[in-house]
Order: sequence, then C-alpha cells, then structure tokens
Amino acid sequence: MHSHAITLLGTGLIGDFYTMTLHGQRGRDRVRVVYSRSEARGTAFRERWSIPESTTDMEAAIRHPETDVVIVALPNHLHEEAVKAVAAAGKAVLCTKPLGRNADEAKRMLEAVEAAGVFGGYLEDLCYTPKTLKAIRSVEEGALGDVTWVRSRETHPGPHSAWFWDGRLTGGGAIIDLGCHCIEIIRNFVGKGNRPVSVMCTTDTLVHPIDDEDNAIALIRFESGAIGQFEVSWTFRGGMDLRDEVAGTHGTIWLNHFLRTGYEMFTAGGSGGYVAEKAETAAGWLFPVGDEVSELGYVDMFTDMFNALDGGGTPQETFYDGYIVNAVMDACYRSARSGQWEPVDLFEWRGGTTPRITAVGETWEGHTIIKREVLPDGRVKMILKDRDTGDYVDRVISGE
Amino acid sequence: MHSHAITLLGTGLIGDFYTMTLHGQRGRDRVRVVYSRSEARGTAFRERWSIPESTTDMEAAIRHPETDVVIVALPNHLHEEAVKAVAAAGKAVLCTKPLGRNADEAKRMLEAVEAAGVFGGYLEDLCYTPKTLKAIRSVEEGALGDVTWVRSRETHPGPHSAWFWDGRLTGGGAIIDLGCHCIEIIRNFVGKGNRPVSVMCTTDTLVHPIDDEDNAIALIRFESGAIGQFEVSWTFRGGMDLRDEVAGTHGTIWLNHFLRTGYEMFTAGGSGGYVAEKAETAAGWLFPVGDEVSELGYVDMFTDMFNALDGGGTPQETFYDGYIVNAVMDACYRSARSGQWEPVDLFEWRGGTTPRITAVGETWEGHTIIKREVLPDGRVKMILKDRDTGDYVDRVISGE
Amino acid sequence: MHSHAITLLGTGLIGDFYTMTLHGQRGRDRVRVVYSRSEARGTAFRERWSIPESTTDMEAAIRHPETDVVIVALPNHLHEEAVKAVAAAGKAVLCTKPLGRNADEAKRMLEAVEAAGVFGGYLEDLCYTPKTLKAIRSVEEGALGDVTWVRSRETHPGPHSAWFWDGRLTGGGAIIDLGCHCIEIIRNFVGKGNRPVSVMCTTDTLVHPIDDEDNAIALIRFESGAIGQFEVSWTFRGGMDLRDEVAGTHGTIWLNHFLRTGYEMFTAGGSGGYVAEKAETAAGWLFPVGDEVSELGYVDMFTDMFNALDGGGTPQETFYDGYIVNAVMDACYRSARSGQWEPVDLFEWRGGTTPRITAVGETWEGHTIIKREVLPDGRVKMILKDRDTGDYVDRVISGE
Amino acid sequence: MHSHAITLLGTGLIGDFYTMTLHGQRGRDRVRVVYSRSEARGTAFRERWSIPESTTDMEAAIRHPETDVVIVALPNHLHEEAVKAVAAAGKAVLCTKPLGRNADEAKRMLEAVEAAGVFGGYLEDLCYTPKTLKAIRSVEEGALGDVTWVRSRETHPGPHSAWFWDGRLTGGGAIIDLGCHCIEIIRNFVGKGNRPVSVMCTTDTLVHPIDDEDNAIALIRFESGAIGQFEVSWTFRGGMDLRDEVAGTHGTIWLNHFLRTGYEMFTAGGSGGYVAEKAETAAGWLFPVGDEVSELGYVDMFTDMFNALDGGGTPQETFYDGYIVNAVMDACYRSARSGQWEPVDLFEWRGGTTPRITAVGETWEGHTIIKREVLPDGRVKMILKDRDTGDYVDRVISGE
Repeated sequence: MHSHAITLLGTGLIGDFYTMTLHGQRGRDRVRVVYSRSEARGTAFRERWSIPESTTDMEAAIRHPETDVVIVALPNHLHEEAVKAVAAAGKAVLCTKPLGRNADEAKRMLEAVEAAGVFGGYLEDLCYTPKTLKAIRSVEEGALGDVTWVRSRETHPGPHSAWFWDGRLTGGGAIIDLGCHCIEIIRNFVGKGNRPVSVMCTTDTLVHPIDDEDNAIALIRFESGAIGQFEVSWTFRGGMDLRDEVAGTHGTIWLNHFLRTGYEMFTAGGSGGYVAEKAETAAGWLFPVGDEVSELGYVDMFTDMFNALDGGGTPQETFYDGYIVNAVMDACYRSARSGQWEPVDLFEWRGGTTPRITAVGETWEGHTIIKREVLPDGRVKMILKDRDTGDYVDRVISGE
Repeated sequence: MHSHAITLLGTGLIGDFYTMTLHGQRGRDRVRVVYSRSEARGTAFRERWSIPESTTDMEAAIRHPETDVVIVALPNHLHEEAVKAVAAAGKAVLCTKPLGRNADEAKRMLEAVEAAGVFGGYLEDLCYTPKTLKAIRSVEEGALGDVTWVRSRETHPGPHSAWFWDGRLTGGGAIIDLGCHCIEIIRNFVGKGNRPVSVMCTTDTLVHPIDDEDNAIALIRFESGAIGQFEVSWTFRGGMDLRDEVAGTHGTIWLNHFLRTGYEMFTAGGSGGYVAEKAETAAGWLFPVGDEVSELGYVDMFTDMFNALDGGGTPQETFYDGYIVNAVMDACYRSARSGQWEPVDLFEWRGGTTPRITAVGETWEGHTIIKREVLPDGRVKMILKDRDTGDYVDRVISGE
Repeated sequence: MHSHAITLLGTGLIGDFYTMTLHGQRGRDRVRVVYSRSEARGTAFRERWSIPESTTDMEAAIRHPETDVVIVALPNHLHEEAVKAVAAAGKAVLCTKPLGRNADEAKRMLEAVEAAGVFGGYLEDLCYTPKTLKAIRSVEEGALGDVTWVRSRETHPGPHSAWFWDGRLTGGGAIIDLGCHCIEIIRNFVGKGNRPVSVMCTTDTLVHPIDDEDNAIALIRFESGAIGQFEVSWTFRGGMDLRDEVAGTHGTIWLNHFLRTGYEMFTAGGSGGYVAEKAETAAGWLFPVGDEVSELGYVDMFTDMFNALDGGGTPQETFYDGYIVNAVMDACYRSARSGQWEPVDLFEWRGGTTPRITAVGETWEGHTIIKREVLPDGRVKMILKDRDTGDYVDRVISGE
Repeated sequence: MHSHAITLLGTGLIGDFYTMTLHGQRGRDRVRVVYSRSEARGTAFRERWSIPESTTDMEAAIRHPETDVVIVALPNHLHEEAVKAVAAAGKAVLCTKPLGRNADEAKRMLEAVEAAGVFGGYLEDLCYTPKTLKAIRSVEEGALGDVTWVRSRETHPGPHSAWFWDGRLTGGGAIIDLGCHCIEIIRNFVGKGNRPVSVMCTTDTLVHPIDDEDNAIALIRFESGAIGQFEVSWTFRGGMDLRDEVAGTHGTIWLNHFLRTGYEMFTAGGSGGYVAEKAETAAGWLFPVGDEVSELGYVDMFTDMFNALDGGGTPQETFYDGYIVNAVMDACYRSARSGQWEPVDLFEWRGGTTPRITAVGETWEGHTIIKREVLPDGRVKMILKDRDTGDYVDRVISGE
C-alpha cells in the first residue's frame, strides 16, 4: 500500500479541489508542500488544508526532498516551465487541463516528460466522473454498438478568476477553458484509437467585452465516421450545464453531471450556504450535486493516477492525450477563422486505424431491407429498396 | 362561430393525425371528403374517421362544392401540383411540411397562392406545441434577454413509410424529413424578423443502405449573431428524441417534447398497446406522452389556421415561412457538399433588420467590468479589464 | 354534431378555467349566460369571455330558455341548492368538485339528479388529464398486473380565494380542497368496482392560523387489498406538486403533472408574465406547463361529458362517484379524530366485488419458489421455501 | 494519519460492498481478516479482495492481534452474539443495519458496548449518501424552515439472499430490511433531538408466498408535530426506487438516489454487464448510477466512523440510533396488528425536547393574515380572517 507525498504548484480554485480530494475521505496521499507566487495565498492555503510547508520558490517546491509527485495547478502560461522543471527533477508530474496553450507547447511538454522518462498524467477530471467511467465501459462492452455521435456540452456564466479571461495567458477563451474537457470526453466515447481527422468550428463574443470567444460550437470528424460535437459558453444562465450524449447504432447514453442529478431543492431563502460551483442563485429551485469532487471526477482521477504510478502502468489520461486535445483546439481556432473544415495536425498518431462504421445491408427476396419493425399484431413490416430501380416499397409479412 | 368543411388530400399517417385532431375533442370543423390515389385506402380512411365521401379524383376533391378549405397531406413531390390546383380553385390551402422539395418548388407554391389571393397556411405542427407556444411568448416578453443560441433536435430510428426514404420523391433524407421542423422552431425563437444569413452543415449515411443522409448536423447564423443548431437522425435508438434548448443573455429554456414529459412506465410486458410514435419497445421502462396530437402541436396549429382564416388574419406559419425553411435546407445541402459556410439565398426578405446582440460594457473606476458576482458574505467580486494594458484583475468591494 | 348552450353558475377561478376550455381551440359549445352573486363580477366575466348575458338571478340563469346544460362552479356550500334547482328545471347538470361538503349533502344531490332523471356529471378534472387517461387505459389493459398501491399527491402553498379557507363553507380544509382529487384518481387506478373499505388518516394545522387542516395524509384500503395513499398540503413550498404513482405486480407508473413535465426555464427576471397556477416565483428556475387546461384535464373532461350527453351514455365521472369521494373524506375526518381505521360508510355500493390480489405460489421440487432471477451467466437463481420447516434456501440452476 | 486493520465478520453482499469501499480509491484502512461460517466462502472472499487471512473461527477473528476494529456484516440473528464478543474483546465495533431484530436485542447490544466502553458505530449507509449529507446540512442551516414532513421510500423486487426472507432470522419482512433505512433518514431530517412519539403502520403480504410483510407503509409522529412517512416494498417493479422528500415551512428537498440520477441509457441488448443493484432488465431504457458505493453512502459512512474513532468523537450514527430505529419498528409491527397509533416505547430518551412547529399569525388592521401573495401588477393580495366572526375575506392593497 504505497502512499505519496506531493508538491502542489498553485493555490487557485483548482488547487483547492485537488487538495480537498486528496485529503478527503480516508485517502493516504498528502500534499507535503505547496507553492504559490504569493506568500499570503500560500500561507492561507497551507493553513486551510493543514499542509506542512508553503513556499514562493517553485524550484525548491519541486525539488523538495520528501515529495515524489508534483501536481501542476498553475495558470496555463506557466505549465510548460513547470513541467520542464519537474521533468528535470526526475519526479512524476501531473498537469491540470489544458496541457498547453496550443499544440506546440503541449508537444514540448510531452517531449520533456518522455525524454526524462518520468511519469506524466494529464489531470482531465471530467473523463473520470463515475458516470463517465461506467458509460465508457458500457460503450466498450458494446452496449451501444458503433458510436456515431457524441455531444459534450459545458457552459456556465464565466470563470471566477481574472486570468482565465486573458487569452494571452490561457491561449484562448471558452474553447481553451471548457472545450478541452469536451474533446477528451468525446475521444473516450468514440475510442482513443479513433483518429480525429478534421474540425469545423464557429466562435463568437456575444456578451462579455473581451477579446476571445465567449461562445463556441465545434464538430470533430473521426476516422470511423463518428462526429463529435461540443458546445461551450461563458454566457449560459442558470448554473453550470454539464451534459454528454452518446448515440450508437444500438443504443444511447445521456449523462447529466450537474443541474439534474436527482437533487432538487426549493428554498424561500435564508440558507446562506454554498450551493454548487457556478450556481447563480441562492433561492428558488436549486440543483446541488451530492459530492462535487466525486461527481466531477477528481476522486477517480487521482486514484487512477496514483494506482498507475504504483503499478508501473499508464493512466487513462496521459500527456499524449493532452497534446491531442490541444491539437484539436488549434484546429478549432483555425476553422473559426477560415469558415472551413480544418485538418487536425498531429506530429505523430499513436492510435492505429479504425474502420468506417458499416451498415450491413440485409436482403429479402433480392431487395435491400431498409427497416424492419414488428407490428402490434406480430406481423413484420419491412421497408425494401429495389436494387435496380432504386424504388422503395412497404411489405408486411407474418412474423417468424 | 364559423366552422369549416374540409377536403383532405392524402391518407397516410399524417392524414390520420390531422383528422384525429380535427374530429377530436369538441371541434367544429370536419373533413367532408378525402382523396387517396388508392380507392381501398380512401375507403378505409373514410370509414375510420366517419367522413361522408372518399374519391380517387383529386381535382374533384379540391373542387367539392361543400368544402372551403383544402389540406394537402401528400408526399412531398405532389405538393406543388396540389397547391396550384387548390389556388386555381380559389380555396384556402393548408400544406403539410416541408412545403417543397427545394426552395424553387416552394417559391412557385408561394407565388401560386399569393397570385390567386387565397389563404395559405404552412402546417408546421412542432412550432405549435403548447410548450413551444408558451416558450416563444416568454422569449418575446424578454424573459431570456437576447437569444444567443437555439438547439433543436429531432431524431428517431427512421420513418414508417417507404416513400420517405426515396430522396427523389422527398428532396433529401433526414434534413428534409426532420430538419424542416427544427429550422422553423429555431426561427420562432430567434425571431422571424431575424434573417438567416449562412449555414454550415455536415451529413452522413451511417446505418441505412440508402442514398440520402440518415444523420445531419447544421449551424445557422442569423443576422443578430444568434446561432441555430439542429441535429437530425434516422438512426437514434430509444424512441423519438424531440428537444429544444434556447439560451439567452438573461435566461435559458429547455423543452422536452417526447421521451421525458413526466410520464414514466415500467412494464414486465403484456400491455400489447400502442406506446407512442416511434417507440421502440413495449416492455421495460417506457415514456409515453399524454395526448400526442396536443403535445405535437396539431391542436393549436389548426386552431391558429382556422381562427386566422375566420378573422381575415395571417397564421403564425405561412407559405413564406415554408419557403424560408426550404431555402435554409438548400443551403444545408450545399454546405454539406462544399464543407463551407454557405449563404442562404432568398428571392425576397420580408423580415426587416435585426441589430447585432450587444454587450454593454459597464465600467468601474475606468476599467471595463467583465463579470460581477455577489459573494456569500455580501461583498461583490468584480473581474475588471484594464483598457490600456488589456490586463485582467480581480477586485472585491463591499456590496451596496 | 351536437353543440350545447350553457348556463354557468359562478365566476371564480374555476369558472375562468371552464370557460377558457369551452371557448378555447375550435370548440363548438358555448356559455350562453353566466350567473354571479355580484353584478360587477358577472359583467366583468361576461365581457372577458364574450358571453351574451350575465345575471344575478340564479333561477333565471338556470331556466334560461336557450340553455340545455348548467355548470355549477360555485363554492361548496351552494352546490346542493344549485343542483336541486337544475334538477327541478330538468336540465343536465355538471357540478364541480367536491360534490358536497360531506356525504349526506352529496347523497341528496345524487338523489335529486336521479329522481329528476337528468344527466349528472361530476367535474373531477384531474381524472381526465391526458396522462391519467392513458395510464388508466394501460392499467386496464394489464400492463401493471394487479394494482397493489396508488399514491396521489397534491400540494401547494394554499388557495387563492378567501372562501376556500372557511371550513364552514367548504366542509373542511386541504382534504376537501385537494384530497377529493386524489381519492378519485386512486379509485380510477385500483378500479371503480373495487370497494373502498376503510380509511386511516392523520391531519394537522401546522402553518396557517386556521381552524381546519392544512396538511393531511390518508391510507385507503380497498377490497382487493390494494392501498391508496394521498398526501395533501396547503403548506408546500415551490409551486404546485401534482404527482401520481401506481405500483402493480407487473409494472409501475409515475405521473408528474406540474413541476416536471419537460419544460424548464431559468430567467434572471424581467419576464413579468404568468408562469403557472400556484407558481411561487417569477425568476430563477421555473417549471411551467404547456397548456394548463389540457394538462389539468379540463379539455378531455368536457369532451367526455358532452359526448356522453350527446350519445345518451354515462360519463367517466358521475354524481355517484362524487358521493363515494365524499364518503371517503368523511371517513378520513372520522379517522383523524379517532386515531383508528374507520369504515367507509356507503348507503349503497354499485360496484360489485373484487377478488383479493393473489400470489400464485409456483413450486420447484416440492419447494415454494419465492423469487427467481436470471444471473449474468444465464443461470437461474431461485430462493426456495421448504414447506415443512419453513426454512429458506438459495438454489442456482442452469437456465432453460 | 491513522489507519486501521479490520476484522470483517460475514461474506455476503454487504461484506462485498464494505470491502469494495474500504479497499477502493486511495483508502488507507484494510480488511486484515475475514470470518465466514463457510470455509469456501471465506476463501473466495479473501482471494476476491486480497485479504491476508480468512477463518471460520469467529472468536479468533475478533481477537486477531493485528486488528483494532471489527465490522459485523452478519445476518441479523447473529448481531447480538457478535457485538457482545467484540465488546468483550475491547475493540471498536461497527454493526450493519438493522442493529437488532427488535428493540430488546438492540438495547442489549447498546448496553454491551457502553458497558465495555468501546467505540460503537451503526452502519446505516443511506444516512451518509453525499446527497443526504448535504441535504441534512441545508436543513440544519435553515434552508427549509421547520421540517413538517419527510417521506422516505425504498422499494425493489425483493432481496437476493435466502435468509432475508426468513422473519425468524431477521425479525420481520420489508420493514426490517428497508424500513430501518427510512426511519433513520427521517430522523436525520426532522432532527435527532426530535422524539418519535407514536406510529401508525399498515402491512400486507401481497405477492410473495412468505409469512412476513412484503409491503408496508408507516407514519411516525414526532414531538415537533412533523410527520415521517415511509413506504417499503419487496414487490416494486422497475429496479430499486430510493427517494426521499422533505417539506418545510420555507422549502422543499427531493432526493432521488437510484433510478433517476442523470444517467440514462438505452440499449438494444448485448451489453451483458452489471447495471445496478436490483436492476430488473439488461435492455431497453436503463438507469445506472455512477459509483454505487459512493452514491449509497458507504464511502462517507466509513470516513465518518474512522475519523470519529481517530478523533475520539462520536459518529453520526451510533448504537443508540440503531436502538431507536428498532424501537420505532417494534411500534410499527404493533400498530399493524392493532390498527391504531402505537407509542414508541424507549427505555431512555437522550434527545431533549423539541418545540411544536409554530405558525406566527401576523395581523393587518386587526385581522389575522392567512396568506399574502404579490400580484403581477405589484399589488399585494391578502386573505384575512376576522377574529370575531371567523369569516375570511380577500383584500388587495398596493405594494410597499
């Protein structure tokens, strides 16, 4: 039963979520030292989570003699420097999403980790929600047949911290903040070996007086023919809308992670408490979630990361996955400018090939069967296509 | 209290729905004569609905001396001929959706009706569902602020009748069958005066061995900056998925018309009865709707049509609307081929202009306010943008 | 195609709902004269609904030469007098719910109508919601097997009009106002021929400073062994909660009529419009219904009433049903006082007998099979009871 | 950071759930030895969960030199013996639900633990679901005002193991199996200091050929006037229905723990996998939950138990709570026989007194205000009661 002592870089909201998860329940891994650019924030964070040490010296934090894992929970523009420093120190590195501000940055981080031979984990929590994990397993077991379409949607009224709004620091707007989640969720459902081929994306800045997009929609075409679709917004009203839909040739999955999870509360006011991340109101009908760090995937994410580390394996979400996500986002931004489908440029594809979804055409008396349905009286109605004329006809036959 | 005697052209499923609606509840309008290409189907239909006469002579049906309204419920390729004949007969004409197989057909039908000076109604039922009507009213009253995005989704496992599958007769595949609904729903939410400017669409044929698309997704850009999005499919599993989502600067609307309407049933089997249109199973968890002809908009649609006719007014859905829908669908097919945004070509735009959605940038001490939120302790957190440097900062002030 | 000219007695909220229904859509029946105790309210109502005449003379309204049907939409304490006057006038009478303030009043009304030989309809709208009608049909067709339990719940923050709060005028509190709906819904699901045998009820006045109950829960035992359960409240927060649940030996039905019907709206405010009956808030997450008069059953109720009248038949809800409901409510009040199960006293039972729900005990090798389930590997697990020792054992056998 | 080595008594389904929880995620507590009456089951369990030792000697397991905590996961009739043995061994004891087969057994177990001065925890998982914990906190913070009513419902098609069906071993039927959960959930919502005063219960055996109840409904009256209501069944069709509803003077909470939690899947079949506890079907619409051991409360339950043990405190659920639950169930069975409200007999009440819910009657111009609502035009409508005559009137005044 291994346990880990962790260096945490960053004391923002995500640092709180990570530490709440690690120190929560009966976990055996602990943050040993936390780094913040601000001494005051570092001290406050240290006291809030009973962490032995805080420091404003990032290099010292990374090279702390008692820690074996470093979690990068910094703003996006600081990821590359931090990851390279951890790789140089020879420690395992877990980096928050998105990996880079663009694919070039992500590629350099991937290379740094691989060159150093250290463990690299991509902290994409929303691919680890308990619902998502179970749904992915159902898809892999064939419950949906071939996946034809995945919709992943993440929208809310906008981030809480200033730096998120500055595209120079983050790499973009709502796509960089939210789309990175959606893309990787989609990849998990269509299969990670299913190459993202091209992207069509539209962006706009409709509400906030900012330079980057506060709304975007994108379509991703995969090698199999499956389409991924994401919708991201910083202008949604009503809380945080976090839903995934998967359609396959034999089934359907709908996941709702936040606003409709079986917890409904009306209050005339007076609660005063925290409702949920990005909740807009504290009275009227509210839709809290039970355990946010579990429902948002943080618990299973760290379990996978540390178990992979302990067992010498590979986590579900790797730096290569983070690179792919950045490459897809780069294509999104190109497409939004060009108004066309843009190819997803990858310096290397590690996923093999995926065959095109195939509709096996059954036949009946020499005609192609388009559809068959059982009528209430037990007879079978078929819609048939004549191969020669291309005409379609209805035909009702007695059931077997 | 006027009432109408109706000529019905066509005896397919839609004819049943129409007549069930007209003859249902305590309605005062009646089908007087029904036309079918097949004498047997005409007779069966006549008896099923207690209609005085059936005929295989379309011209005679249209010119029946006792009827004042003709409903065109024929396959798409027969709309133009029928509409022209009714216009020539000087009677009111109500035509099922889509109006034409393409915008050219629709334009000729529109011109025929307008030249003859007869009443023309476009039977787009899903714009008339009670939920949709009330939601449109809420949007018009400002409950959502400016509409930024509308998603309309209609998917099911594929049509019941052979002719739907033949693009030569219908004009296309799932877009023609289902997308026409979505486009007009979207137009009602973004405002009918809001010009559809351009379209981006992708189509594929993934499951059925047919020549036309069984899946499509499209984005429609409107003059205001609003984006309409539709998803249509003939390969969905689980019944008929009929949902609309509307996002605005001040609110959100989610409508679910079919699979989740507050009616949930589990049965171990043995019911044997009809569950709902496009339901796939008769055991396990089922999701019927209460009154299909009401929930799908047929009741309010005919009320609007006949009331407009009685009052000398214009119905909510006109032949011009039908023409617009066809023009948008034409642009969808062009975009699916070109892989680019395609303009929506209109021979005439009757809707005026709609201003761009505007984000009014408030300021605080010379900085642009990006976001403000009230903290649990009553203080106000603002995210500010420095106009000179473009930098973003957090600022917490005491509330008013 | 008969149509009816109606005398409406009463101009309260229910009178508005009734007239909105009758004059709505393309209905052919019309209110010809409305009676109100107040001339001002009568005039306002007449103008609101384009009714030819209003009067403060009830007898004149009832005996109006052009009307053939009288609707009693008066406060409860005026039902008996009104119904007797209509019966004396020899016209059809439709009376709102509850029929009487108690079973004695209801019995006298029933007798008056039957003695006069006039058509009597009990306007219990919630038994006529489209969902309820379809669900009753599913139950009758056997989709649920034997019904074992029905829960009907109606709760909201309290009535809008003063007289509802005065038990002297109404006959009680929340039971009289809301329980009457629930009881008749329950009867429809367990079967109208299934005699209500005894009742256990608890009441309390928890929030409002009134003399009657603002909360009550009751259990009704039927001859078959089925249990009906109702929960009524005038202190519910969050809108109007209107749900039914039916459990049977082979299935389950859940109906939600109001707060969760597939219509969800968030608004930051500014709508200003009417949301739904008993809605508490005009901002935040709201749950309107599409077409209230349809969803609440008014449309199908009047259709059934007038069709039965035209066809010489009996409507689904009769004065006898209203009497039964009053008798059950009487037993509820007795039980609330005695703290015991109280018999439902009926002067006459017209429903025949219903056999006890029977569990047919299958056997396997001489043991009683308690439960069988198919395991994931296809084998069958049985729980068996030894008839001699009374011991229970697990047994796994290979499936057929 | 303490960790615990555990003796687990019992290898049934609940033992699996417990061990899955303890050994899951990154937990630091471990089962060190497992006891089973059957050597084969013990060995299989040990191997399944990588436990160092298994044994068929209960005393040896309890006194294992390396363990400090004993978990009792045995059938009900073995709880007393096991708990006494653990108490005698001076170790912390955690006992599954229900504590005893009746209050006498539970009292003796409580006394044994208290006399020995060992830590005693009552493993009532459903009081620890993340939703329930957060909801209890909201109630405690006043979000609902005074709680007036709690409904807790647990129903499914019947237990998986034979011994559950034998009332001689368990103490009863569905009440003992499921009602124990509901009662303690209700107590948490009305407040544990709120004394359960009396109980009204009805039971029946409708479907299974067994000697104990397969259906029961009970009402529990608390000192404050709040009513708890539970519905339990072994004959429910459709899976496991696990819902709680809480009504208060200022708010409402609805929790759905199982069949509707934002995870919806349709499959035409072929998945073959495990869906969820008590799921009935493997095709059609299915409603899995994400992480069962988290959603059902096991994770937070053990965290509370071990944290309380480490910190020298008291867990949320104690042996005294288990005793209260048994005492309420005893009253349920007495009431089911007597047909009357039965007092809850307690040898000792440790909870203090709770005042009656009080409706503060505001007045306006000398009248009691029954209800006030803001009209759409801003005016305020009040329903007033005249203190002298008892009459009720409507009064509309201009808003502030």
